Amino acid sequence: MTAASWGLLDPAGAGASATGDDEVLRAMVDVEAALLGAWGDVLGEPHDAAAAVLDAGALDRASLVEGVARDGVVVVALVPLLSAQLEDAGESSAHLHLGATSQDVVDSALMLVASRALADARDRLLASGSALAALAVTGRRDPRVARTLARPAAPSTLGVLAADWLDGVSSAVAAIDALEFPVQFGGAVGTGVKADAAAGRPGAADEVRAALAARLGLADPGRSWHTERSAVLAVAHAASTVVAALGRIGRDATLLSRPELGEVVLAGGGGSSAMPHKRNPVDAVALTAAAVEAPGLVATATAAASAADERPAGEWHAGWGAFRRLLALAESASAASARLGGGMTFDPERAADLLAASGVGAADDVVLAASDRIVDRAVARFAAVRDASNPGGDA
Amino acid sequence: MTAASWGLLDPAGAGASATGDDEVLRAMVDVEAALLGAWGDVLGEPHDAAAAVLDAGALDRASLVEGVARDGVVVVALVPLLSAQLEDAGESSAHLHLGATSQDVVDSALMLVASRALADARDRLLASGSALAALAVTGRRDPRVARTLARPAAPSTLGVLAADWLDGVSSAVAAIDALEFPVQFGGAVGTGVKADAAAGRPGAADEVRAALAARLGLADPGRSWHTERSAVLAVAHAASTVVAALGRIGRDATLLSRPELGEVVLAGGGGSSAMPHKRNPVDAVALTAAAVEAPGLVATATAAASAADERPAGEWHAGWGAFRRLLALAESASAASARLGGGMTFDPERAADLLAASGVGAADDVVLAASDRIVDRAVARFAAVRDASNPGGDA
Amino acid sequence: MTAASWGLLDPAGAGASATGDDEVLRAMVDVEAALLGAWGDVLGEPHDAAAAVLDAGALDRASLVEGVARDGVVVVALVPLLSAQLEDAGESSAHLHLGATSQDVVDSALMLVASRALADARDRLLASGSALAALAVTGRRDPRVARTLARPAAPSTLGVLAADWLDGVSSAVAAIDALEFPVQFGGAVGTGVKADAAAGRPGAADEVRAALAARLGLADPGRSWHTERSAVLAVAHAASTVVAALGRIGRDATLLSRPELGEVVLAGGGGSSAMPHKRNPVDAVALTAAAVEAPGLVATATAAASAADERPAGEWHAGWGAFRRLLALAESASAASARLGGGMTFDPERAADLLAASGVGAADDVVLAASDRIVDRAVARFAAVRDASNPGGDA
Amino acid sequence: MTAASWGLLDPAGAGASATGDDEVLRAMVDVEAALLGAWGDVLGEPHDAAAAVLDAGALDRASLVEGVARDGVVVVALVPLLSAQLEDAGESSAHLHLGATSQDVVDSALMLVASRALADARDRLLASGSALAALAVTGRRDPRVARTLARPAAPSTLGVLAADWLDGVSSAVAAIDALEFPVQFGGAVGTGVKADAAAGRPGAADEVRAALAARLGLADPGRSWHTERSAVLAVAHAASTVVAALGRIGRDATLLSRPELGEVVLAGGGGSSAMPHKRNPVDAVALTAAAVEAPGLVATATAAASAADERPAGEWHAGWGAFRRLLALAESASAASARLGGGMTFDPERAADLLAASGVGAADDVVLAASDRIVDRAVARFAAVRDASNPGGDA
Repeated sequence: MTAASWGLLDPAGAGASATGDDEVLRAMVDVEAALLGAWGDVLGEPHDAAAAVLDAGALDRASLVEGVARDGVVVVALVPLLSAQLEDAGESSAHLHLGATSQDVVDSALMLVASRALADARDRLLASGSALAALAVTGRRDPRVARTLARPAAPSTLGVLAADWLDGVSSAVAAIDALEFPVQFGGAVGTGVKADAAAGRPGAADEVRAALAARLGLADPGRSWHTERSAVLAVAHAASTVVAALGRIGRDATLLSRPELGEVVLAGGGGSSAMPHKRNPVDAVALTAAAVEAPGLVATATAAASAADERPAGEWHAGWGAFRRLLALAESASAASARLGGGMTFDPERAADLLAASGVGAADDVVLAASDRIVDRAVARFAAVRDASNPGGDA
Repeated sequence: MTAASWGLLDPAGAGASATGDDEVLRAMVDVEAALLGAWGDVLGEPHDAAAAVLDAGALDRASLVEGVARDGVVVVALVPLLSAQLEDAGESSAHLHLGATSQDVVDSALMLVASRALADARDRLLASGSALAALAVTGRRDPRVARTLARPAAPSTLGVLAADWLDGVSSAVAAIDALEFPVQFGGAVGTGVKADAAAGRPGAADEVRAALAARLGLADPGRSWHTERSAVLAVAHAASTVVAALGRIGRDATLLSRPELGEVVLAGGGGSSAMPHKRNPVDAVALTAAAVEAPGLVATATAAASAADERPAGEWHAGWGAFRRLLALAESASAASARLGGGMTFDPERAADLLAASGVGAADDVVLAASDRIVDRAVARFAAVRDASNPGGDA
Repeated sequence: MTAASWGLLDPAGAGASATGDDEVLRAMVDVEAALLGAWGDVLGEPHDAAAAVLDAGALDRASLVEGVARDGVVVVALVPLLSAQLEDAGESSAHLHLGATSQDVVDSALMLVASRALADARDRLLASGSALAALAVTGRRDPRVARTLARPAAPSTLGVLAADWLDGVSSAVAAIDALEFPVQFGGAVGTGVKADAAAGRPGAADEVRAALAARLGLADPGRSWHTERSAVLAVAHAASTVVAALGRIGRDATLLSRPELGEVVLAGGGGSSAMPHKRNPVDAVALTAAAVEAPGLVATATAAASAADERPAGEWHAGWGAFRRLLALAESASAASARLGGGMTFDPERAADLLAASGVGAADDVVLAASDRIVDRAVARFAAVRDASNPGGDA
Repeated sequence: MTAASWGLLDPAGAGASATGDDEVLRAMVDVEAALLGAWGDVLGEPHDAAAAVLDAGALDRASLVEGVARDGVVVVALVPLLSAQLEDAGESSAHLHLGATSQDVVDSALMLVASRALADARDRLLASGSALAALAVTGRRDPRVARTLARPAAPSTLGVLAADWLDGVSSAVAAIDALEFPVQFGGAVGTGVKADAAAGRPGAADEVRAALAARLGLADPGRSWHTERSAVLAVAHAASTVVAALGRIGRDATLLSRPELGEVVLAGGGGSSAMPHKRNPVDAVALTAAAVEAPGLVATATAAASAADERPAGEWHAGWGAFRRLLALAESASAASARLGGGMTFDPERAADLLAASGVGAADDVVLAASDRIVDRAVARFAAVRDASNPGGDA
């Protein structure tokens, strides 16, 4: 019996297409296949036919789950199943998992999943950013009241509001683009000696790792990092930066679309079991929910990073769930922000009325000129970030 | 697409039988069925045949998952499916979900799940405690060196070691037993007016809530608590107390069973994909992993408790996952601790050797007399906690 | 050099009078004095004159801070300074710190601080609750619109709003009242053998611990709990329950006092360096800030609870700050909530206008009757909690 | 009354010289002085004499603390005190705080503090890294047993152990060096219009911000970021990366220096109040304690990053403490790691004995050759990071 989840209570999971167990298993098999291929590269033998045999979809999930309970990590049960696939196809399993340890497979697979999830998130952030940029341009001359500590503070514009949100999206994209997703390949204790010995020459582990990275589209860090978890932390940090930037938009959109304010108008909306007439701001709620959930996950990722020995007795395992969940939230919140941005409009009349009622004065030429500069600057920054070459994951 | 999990990277999930999506869905349907029955009780009509029609297993999961994405909460899609079950069986759906809001169903279902998961955890803690009590009695006169700040400090006994662990188990059981698991029934905004109106008399909502609580075996809190989340926090706190108490045992057992120490001997062990000869302390690792993961979850549960309005726009949703995961960890860590305790033995000769080598002196009569008192006291406390009537969930 | 804080960036600290370093040091000296007295009780010798000599105010803070850096815990430096105070006064120091370890002093002192801080918090919660009860009674027939997911949902009353807040305050008081604050006295490794040996009879440590508890007004747990941290966790949990309950009030009060809503009117307010005309809702902000800060602190307290050995090599130290900060937040948030409640009024006309504009219909007799019941119930529950005998800390 | 701390229970604070209230206040006054100077730069007037008048040391702390309680932020009380200093010195206060809001001063000051604290941390990390590099080179041919999941796994060397730690230090330095510390200057609501108006030309706020950044040695982000908190999150993330990398070293050093293992020998050590003979591994404990405390702080920093409005009603305030504490931990843990590394030696004979006893086989030529490569690579990476130009804060 396992605590399986298929999405019953997980609106966030609904937008996360890269982080589920099926996707992680596929990534693990991708890693094992790429490792077969990498050995072929290093030894000058063709292994691609064997690698093509490996099939995540054909694996017996029940055996894997049994293995998880027994061994604490699924790879111990996975390797014999893959070996059987090779043997059934008449391929040699001599190089399967050769020189690798469970952590090599799990860490590399999770980095693959991370690069895929954050590439998705980046695409969705760009969609969200494009929508916000358009809103910023549209609203650059539409006065509204800016508020601090929940009180009217001074005149601003709807364009500045959207530009400020857009800055968060640009920062989120930049945080993703600054990442490297390194491959893991160190063998039992990170020294690569089994690979060296198998190849019969010193440094062969470095060659296999480089070939593995190239085949998977991951970075070659030039070393193993079983217990040096800064790369994992960096991914967790970037994911949480995405979620936090979007959480702010979610909170603002929720507030400003309340009918008592109404400067922001949201499209669509979810239903209610008690009040059929009601339209709930589902996407804005999802952004807020993700922002409330992310801090605890970053805490777990940070705690898991203080590993010990050559593989820690619990910290490594503790970090898997939080890492994946942060990626799922980044992916799903990005999707929600794209939907939210795409359906959002401003109500300039309502904004003008609220400004007039606030008593903070009118938006004079100085304000409007500042708004123009701020909007132009934010739009230009977004464009620069959007067009930056070498986005995350392609290192 | 949803981020489904069937246990691939979740050794903790392996021991959690009460918190998966299937179990939560069943609990939701239990709540809807009990609410039908409760209306029958209040109105003096027999609804039990209708209630018996409702079948969680027959529900279309894909429709539910679609509903989650659309509405942010599954209940909006669930109710029409249940209504169709009633109609197909020729039963009236007039009282289905009557007077309830989505949160009534989700909160009550999660409290049911909590009471079931922590009842499981309690059973397993008792098994663990029995094993530790036996170890304490066995080792009460076996000297060992006690260590503080990772340095030998003073003579003690193996019995005191087990007694200290046992104290944690007793505290964990007591934390569960102090809980109440309240039912939720407040209607759209917590005032119960739809139920009052449907019954045609003031206070009917209170009657329905009381009947619902009785049918579900939950406590009747005498009020709705949609945004007063102290009961949810209390459950999260108890679950984290369980995990923390067991995490300490996991860390100690991991350390003391290292071959360089060896006072503690663990049975069984999991395999390794790189080192077939190796036996890993899987249960101790699971305890440690749970203890590393729990703090972030409690953080999320705490953040989710600061709700707003009559139902918050994100905090409520954010808390579901952390709440369930804490329960799963409590359940699964308790199972691991029962297995660990059941297979654990002490090595008194090794303990004596380490004491001798430590230079802190021998365990004299004062130490042994203290050990006797401490062991007796811990065993008696455990027995008292074990035998306390009215365990959690039966309030 | 130490990272000293005197409150520059700590609005929360402003209301926390029981948790500062001076107060903790005084509590430590209280513990050492009570231990002297307890030895007198157990040995039948008068030690009260010696105990009265000990003076926290006369200690050299620089020496203590040096000791912290050198030893990791202040008690190693503290004891000789206290010994010198006794000798200067012509009193024997033979029983000073006798049978105790640093952790006995720190843990007991922090429990004293906890009992004092939460007694303060309780008083302030009662003041807050009285104000909210009065608001609930005043507003029981004043219609307003209740909101879920940031959207108008259904008619309710201002009285129900205050009653819901009051429920949180009552739960917070109950959480404090459920606590025990145990004394710590176990000696070097928790077995009490030094005390037993010093007294020349087995079980003397138990007698000293009981006498120490009685003198300090703490509970005697019947055991030492150096690494069984459930009592510490329980205090942290109660403090976070207080903060979460008040955080919800802070968020609601912040929102509802926005001029665009205006159902709630706050008194007073803080100034702004850029906008002299502006009045900020400082107390509501403080409640929200505390609620945002608390989750991370509970995470730390939970992580610190998984101790190891007979005193862990880091977890114990890591927990001090989070524990004290949670207490400070509970104390300071309670003070802010008392000020907030004392200065808060409702604007029934504004509430009625918002309800009318919301389109959810009017508050009919069913709603008003429900409001009466809910208000009466919440006020009665508060009175019961308020008048409960044996509040926390007096055990 | 405020919860003042002078270091009584804060071993971490002992090594943190840049983050105390005195240092933050000095940074705030630095910001106000630099702003005076920046206005001089922009207007072509000499303000440096006026700026030199401002004196943090002469400010009345009691007035400031009162202001904190009243206004929720100290700047409202600070500005008039600084104005009085100018007037007393016969200087004009016309440009004091001109165009700034409280958040400009607090955010800029905290970024100054961050750049100072992390520059300290970087220096100490380099000292630690140098020591570890030396250990790696010394131990590159000294066999030991590597351990995974707390069990002997395979032969390795002491050099690889130190090289793995060194990798963490290098990553920590790189994390600091990747940071930018942006100045904040946006005025009441981030648009800079008061500065534009005061200078009588559009864009003046941008000029003042650029001049302010140049004078403070901070980066000019080209915009205000009152509610776009990714730069704050990035600093918090880097600090936590430092602490996590060092926490791992602390845990390993604590374990491996236990007398039952003894491969690692630590110098010095702190005292005990109960066991005068005992030497505690104070620096390793401090590293572990920091690593246990940091996750909760990162959680708070993340939660605080989801701001709202143009200045949030609580989240901003909630983040101050966690941000400073993370910096203090990074600074203090770096200091502890430098002390730890400086006093640490390996015991190759003990390591060889443990390897022999472990049953995992001997360290053959393949292992030793791998060790050479790993040590060389880690030392070269450290040197590259150490010598990287443009360290954090100089952007």
